[in-house]
Amino acid sequence: MSRWTFYTARGTCALATHIALREAGADFDLVPLDFAAGQQQSPEYLRINPKGRVPALATEHGVLTETPALLAFIAQSFPAAQLAPLDDAYAFARMQELAGYLASTVHVAHAHKRRGARWADDPAAHDAMRAKVPQTMTACAEQLEAQIAGPWVAGERYSVVDGYLYTIVGWMAGDGVDMSRFPRLGAHHARVGARPAVQRALAETGA
Amino acid sequence: MSRWTFYTARGTCALATHIALREAGADFDLVPLDFAAGQQQSPEYLRINPKGRVPALATEHGVLTETPALLAFIAQSFPAAQLAPLDDAYAFARMQELAGYLASTVHVAHAHKRRGARWADDPAAHDAMRAKVPQTMTACAEQLEAQIAGPWVAGERYSVVDGYLYTIVGWMAGDGVDMSRFPRLGAHHARVGARPAVQRALAETGA
Repeated sequence: MSRWTFYTARGTCALATHIALREAGADFDLVPLDFAAGQQQSPEYLRINPKGRVPALATEHGVLTETPALLAFIAQSFPAAQLAPLDDAYAFARMQELAGYLASTVHVAHAHKRRGARWADDPAAHDAMRAKVPQTMTACAEQLEAQIAGPWVAGERYSVVDGYLYTIVGWMAGDGVDMSRFPRLGAHHARVGARPAVQRALAETGA
Repeated sequence: MSRWTFYTARGTCALATHIALREAGADFDLVPLDFAAGQQQSPEYLRINPKGRVPALATEHGVLTETPALLAFIAQSFPAAQLAPLDDAYAFARMQELAGYLASTVHVAHAHKRRGARWADDPAAHDAMRAKVPQTMTACAEQLEAQIAGPWVAGERYSVVDGYLYTIVGWMAGDGVDMSRFPRLGAHHARVGARPAVQRALAETGA
């Protein structure tokens, strides 16, 4: 396989894919974008990912985006790393269900804190969105706390979605969630955070 | 396999999963919920899907939710129906990438028209969100129009994500998108809409 290039930015959900790549033992070039300087909207980057977001993974076949798709792709591309239940359609779907919930509900709730301009032009509306984030993220934390089955979200075996849950749970205290109410999420976060692949990914983005 | 039960509601994204089930030739019981009557928040339904949303699919293993996860699960459960590129990790990831974009960007943009109460309490903020929907959905249509490669989104072969694109593109005119600007999306919508499985799913939900 030709060498991949992974585009990321500090403090974004791209950390989940970065962790998966390091867990898989993938060989790739890392390109951190400076969001504060608007690099994700540069003409050069928009040619790579027209959506102007991260993560993006340039492969020998083309560029892939969207965290849930990338997580499944990495797990399927490195089956020996056993990062997903690839031989059990239902277990794989449960993993994908959680990835989908994190992407389209939890991350979206979080984005209303600082990215309200995506969905309204009125600054007063942005304030109203920001004010509700502690409530929506707490509701998400309640759903997630109830879903952790074992040491890892799928039970006995670590999977790519553990790194995704870790990434998003890491935003919750800053979003106004009282994490003392969610001991299983807290224990999971510490367990994932101790993994060498996670430490490496954090160090590589300066987080 | 024991008989599945599929929970849906008219006018929702659950149509995408419904279409996939009919394309697959799955045998299942259909339970349409009355959203106007709040059935999705009934204690009975919350025991099935604590998120109080559709779609939900009760299988012999447990209940599955989240459209992208369900679409991949149905394709994997009925391989003979050839509803996804199951033997090509990159092609499968491209399909999942589009499903992820529809779920976490396009559906989310659409939801700001009528579901603003999810993200803010102030009615003025809901008005501000509603006002921006034509712009955000048009931007999504531009991204999608550029991605349709052939008769189907993945090229020469129909896949579960075609029914998902069909479902969401069906909302765009009502969201204020000038569809005359997007001829490929329009042709795709007509092509999918003519399929017997789609006609059947629409008839079964009274759409």
